[in-house]
Amino acid sequence: MAVERNIKCVVAYDGTKYQGWQRLKNSDHTIQGKIEHVLSKMTNEKIEVMGSGRTDAGVHARWQVFNFHTRCQKSTKNMMDYMNQYLPEDIGVCQVEDVDLRFHSRFHAKKKTYIYRIWIGEYPPVFERKYVHVVTETLHLQKMKEAALLFIGEHDFQGFCSRKVKKSTVRKINHVQLKQEGHELTISVTGNGFLYNMVRIMVGTLIDIGKGTLTKETITEALDTKDRSKAGERAPAKGLILHDVSY
Amino acid sequence: MAVERNIKCVVAYDGTKYQGWQRLKNSDHTIQGKIEHVLSKMTNEKIEVMGSGRTDAGVHARWQVFNFHTRCQKSTKNMMDYMNQYLPEDIGVCQVEDVDLRFHSRFHAKKKTYIYRIWIGEYPPVFERKYVHVVTETLHLQKMKEAALLFIGEHDFQGFCSRKVKKSTVRKINHVQLKQEGHELTISVTGNGFLYNMVRIMVGTLIDIGKGTLTKETITEALDTKDRSKAGERAPAKGLILHDVSY
Repeated sequence: MAVERNIKCVVAYDGTKYQGWQRLKNSDHTIQGKIEHVLSKMTNEKIEVMGSGRTDAGVHARWQVFNFHTRCQKSTKNMMDYMNQYLPEDIGVCQVEDVDLRFHSRFHAKKKTYIYRIWIGEYPPVFERKYVHVVTETLHLQKMKEAALLFIGEHDFQGFCSRKVKKSTVRKINHVQLKQEGHELTISVTGNGFLYNMVRIMVGTLIDIGKGTLTKETITEALDTKDRSKAGERAPAKGLILHDVSY
Repeated sequence: MAVERNIKCVVAYDGTKYQGWQRLKNSDHTIQGKIEHVLSKMTNEKIEVMGSGRTDAGVHARWQVFNFHTRCQKSTKNMMDYMNQYLPEDIGVCQVEDVDLRFHSRFHAKKKTYIYRIWIGEYPPVFERKYVHVVTETLHLQKMKEAALLFIGEHDFQGFCSRKVKKSTVRKINHVQLKQEGHELTISVTGNGFLYNMVRIMVGTLIDIGKGTLTKETITEALDTKDRSKAGERAPAKGLILHDVSY
């Protein structure tokens, strides 16, 4: 019997049409589902892939990592070509490599970076319309930058999570960077892990602070009380992109 | 009766779904048609807009200019908001201003710049898939750059036009610049005017030269003989974007 391999892949996807990363029983529209379907055909095995984490419905990825075990003996180059030939054009595999059998995309991920794109301005973003959240109000960038600093470090982020979680909700945020170029404001968030909807609630809160409907004290309060209702609105999925996963 | 105004607008569009700029009798899918429909509603007049030039089916624009005459007394800001509210999301108006009654978008255009985007690489461009032409072969960039210089200056471009034209086919090209960044090669072409399919045939010829299936002498020959069959293939519409029009 052919030797077992552990294959690590990097994939980019436009999440617009999908119900998120995670395979669902009753839906054909998940990224994991699409990938497993193609890989199972390619290998003649029932392949289950392990992603570095889930992304919500409508969220995109520039650099999502997954791995799977197989006895298929195709070269990694052939695997990549096969996947890109049979996957839909809104899912693209950018890298395929053999890794140690013990490598696990989720458990071994050290840091992740998400980028949230906001379009500010009096006219609509024609080419970026599926990847940016449009804000028509003026945002006070300096206030947002100051508030963002409050996220840095290790905190219990239960107040920035849409679900009650039994496991630890403590996460470490390394960076939150805001950058405006032309009509676009990007918020990039790097941390060792993220709770359900966490980035979108962090960003939504920053936007509310930028609009002046909330103050930066909101963040301290939501962190301290762990109360979701203290934090701001959850920003829409389409502005969010999983930008990088590092090991 | 209200005074007549001449309104100049800048519009961006994703041409993917459209049969091009120019209004057609039997099609609802032209950019000019969509704009005229909205403007006629806005003004209660039968509005005809004049574009700086046509773009083919599937070609995009970041900065197309048009103008129209009206007696509507809305502010330019209100006009812009109205258009952006009622136009589809793949057409966006970025600028609206009152101009001299004699201003004409086409006759007064001095220079236009088109950008052609080529995606080179072993994996597909997920986010840019509607705006780039994918080339999987290696392209010899230096050869393409040398060949591109042959387009500079005033030439008869009949050999780079898909239609027989009765009027003059002499055009002046100011710049052709090739720039590779990461997986993307952009070719930007500036000139005083362009014939039907001219940029796409110029780019297609450069791609063939990059692949090595044609040499740069092809360009000289097609210019000298004015014979379309000497030039290379016409590159696909989706990689082309009207980038700027200057007056």
